[in-house]
Amino acid sequence: MFNFEFYAPTRVVFGRGVESRTGRLLKELGVSRVLIHYGGGSVVRSGLLDRVAASLDEAGVAHTQLGGVVPNPRLPKIREGTELAMQFGAELILAVGGGSVIDSSKAIAYALADPDHDVWDLYCGKRKAAGCFPVACVLTIAAAGSEMSNSSVITNEETGEKRGYRDNQCRLKFAVMNPELTVTLPAYQTAAGCTDIMMHTLERYFTQGGNMELTDRIAEGLLRTVMKNALILRDDPANYDARAEVMWASSLSHNDLTGLGADGMDFVPHGLEHELGGMFDVTHGAGLAAVWPSWARYVYKDCLPRFVQFAVNVMGIAPKNTDKETALAGIAALEEFFRSIHMPVTLKELGVEPTEAQILAMAASFARNAGGKKGTAKVMREADMAAVYRMAL
Amino acid sequence: MFNFEFYAPTRVVFGRGVESRTGRLLKELGVSRVLIHYGGGSVVRSGLLDRVAASLDEAGVAHTQLGGVVPNPRLPKIREGTELAMQFGAELILAVGGGSVIDSSKAIAYALADPDHDVWDLYCGKRKAAGCFPVACVLTIAAAGSEMSNSSVITNEETGEKRGYRDNQCRLKFAVMNPELTVTLPAYQTAAGCTDIMMHTLERYFTQGGNMELTDRIAEGLLRTVMKNALILRDDPANYDARAEVMWASSLSHNDLTGLGADGMDFVPHGLEHELGGMFDVTHGAGLAAVWPSWARYVYKDCLPRFVQFAVNVMGIAPKNTDKETALAGIAALEEFFRSIHMPVTLKELGVEPTEAQILAMAASFARNAGGKKGTAKVMREADMAAVYRMAL
Repeated sequence: MFNFEFYAPTRVVFGRGVESRTGRLLKELGVSRVLIHYGGGSVVRSGLLDRVAASLDEAGVAHTQLGGVVPNPRLPKIREGTELAMQFGAELILAVGGGSVIDSSKAIAYALADPDHDVWDLYCGKRKAAGCFPVACVLTIAAAGSEMSNSSVITNEETGEKRGYRDNQCRLKFAVMNPELTVTLPAYQTAAGCTDIMMHTLERYFTQGGNMELTDRIAEGLLRTVMKNALILRDDPANYDARAEVMWASSLSHNDLTGLGADGMDFVPHGLEHELGGMFDVTHGAGLAAVWPSWARYVYKDCLPRFVQFAVNVMGIAPKNTDKETALAGIAALEEFFRSIHMPVTLKELGVEPTEAQILAMAASFARNAGGKKGTAKVMREADMAAVYRMAL
Repeated sequence: MFNFEFYAPTRVVFGRGVESRTGRLLKELGVSRVLIHYGGGSVVRSGLLDRVAASLDEAGVAHTQLGGVVPNPRLPKIREGTELAMQFGAELILAVGGGSVIDSSKAIAYALADPDHDVWDLYCGKRKAAGCFPVACVLTIAAAGSEMSNSSVITNEETGEKRGYRDNQCRLKFAVMNPELTVTLPAYQTAAGCTDIMMHTLERYFTQGGNMELTDRIAEGLLRTVMKNALILRDDPANYDARAEVMWASSLSHNDLTGLGADGMDFVPHGLEHELGGMFDVTHGAGLAAVWPSWARYVYKDCLPRFVQFAVNVMGIAPKNTDKETALAGIAALEEFFRSIHMPVTLKELGVEPTEAQILAMAASFARNAGGKKGTAKVMREADMAAVYRMAL
């Protein structure tokens, strides 16, 4: 087992009706002025925003609001939020939404702590954050895991770049998680969320080892639990217990627990998807499903013991004649699972048909941003990245 | 799934050699004066105390020391530590040791935050803590899980009472965890530690349900991992990876992760052991092994679905003709596992032969402290508690 650090300080308040406690949770933190940040109209139409605002009013917490965050959240909205938060004197950014809203709130919180520098510098690797204002959330989508992760991902429309930045300073103060709030999600978003959740663990699973047994048992249990409940939700979207399992899995899959003791994290599928997201604005989880099978078939020989373990322990494959056959059967089984929840497993199914020039541009951008190479399952360079895009067509 | 809260803010720094970072970790917290609290001579003889002190010196953190914490830590030492910490102006208590030292440090930290009241009041349920000074640790024993738990257990010699108190305010700021430090533990302590670790999850597992699937998969994976590695350590005590699995399991087993979404926690075996520990000063993990099989056979019919699931998913029992047979086979298999790591499975094997009067006194004390009844697997009253002691003779 390799040395590791684990730091997941977010207070999780989980279950039916817990959003009514938001105001009191803020009060306990000593916070009196808040920017409520949200996305589209669904949190308005559902009445959630009003309920959260009422909870803040009741606790005597002053608030202003900014909506309009879009999937693959953009820089201009972050600059607008930063400006508004400064004018209002907000002491904390309260994200009401899913990963895009939380990531956007984290970016605003970084910007507030260092108003003299451009926050985009963090995302393109120019510098580390000098600080971060407190962030909390009322979660409405189980997917990104941003509610417990140290990660945020922002898109710069001007350059077409989608970039992530990881820093423990942005870990949320609290996450209010009511699975009931996810019941009305469209089936496609639910399935894409389950894919994203699984991928956060898969990105940590395919390494060159480290003998992490407890970590592996947790990872495998999480993957099996998400698959089981994704199928339940496909057929019964209102199933509370299934919503709850998936929502809790979203947090544990990306708070680092499922990769501790390994020799790093892969995150090549995420990188491949980030380029797609930056260029074509696809749904993140669907983009991941569309590239994963091709990535897996491209790299599995270089990470054979882990792909065999995955096939047996996660996909329930009985060992075949050779390790390669077992590994390939595991990949095919996950691909089949993605199909069964109506996720795309090729770029074409995703609705994206990049030209060769676009493939080369995405591979070049990915490689440049990664410093030339990335990956633990297999070290991938620009040509490898392009090859996977072509396989995924 | 029932509503839950999860809050595990401790920063874990895990792996070979990490104790050399202790001073810098304190400095990052802005701490400049520390009471180093420890137990017996082993941390002195091994040179660990000197290494930790040197790390503090290097970081410019002033420190004073107090040793002498014993297993089942006592009140007078806590009063002595509180006095010394106040005189020195300690801003944080740094525990260098295992559960007894950490629990003792938590008690000192509570006392420092409220010097006008007797800290024992917390442990006998008279009041809640008004606050808690910061605590951190360099862990030397994998067992109690106190490094990430909100629990501490103290013994009042005068009354013969061993009592626990749970409060999130005592969660450690950081835990420095080097599995190498546990390599020299006597085999009995290693096995007792593994038993204690398993028990923290078992106490959460035997409930009336709540459909916690991800929680259950994590709990089952943890139990299997500890059993596997306890056997490795029986035969190869210096095995680093096995030490590491067990140490990380000690933290996850008691930081609440393995019981989220359930309808409470059982903790009757712990309560039975606490009375034994208060009266006879036995090794905690060994005391748990000595009462568990009898407790399990006493309660299993009232918690049958969970005992069946335990038998199949944890102990690998193929389902028998009836659920009762399956459940009993699972209990027998865990009993056999305890035997295989040389843990006692009766009070006699533990070296304790209480008289009927002592049994009645322990049952009365347990029931009184629990407010008359306790347990989720089966609600236990005074007569039930006495019956389990008799079965365990």
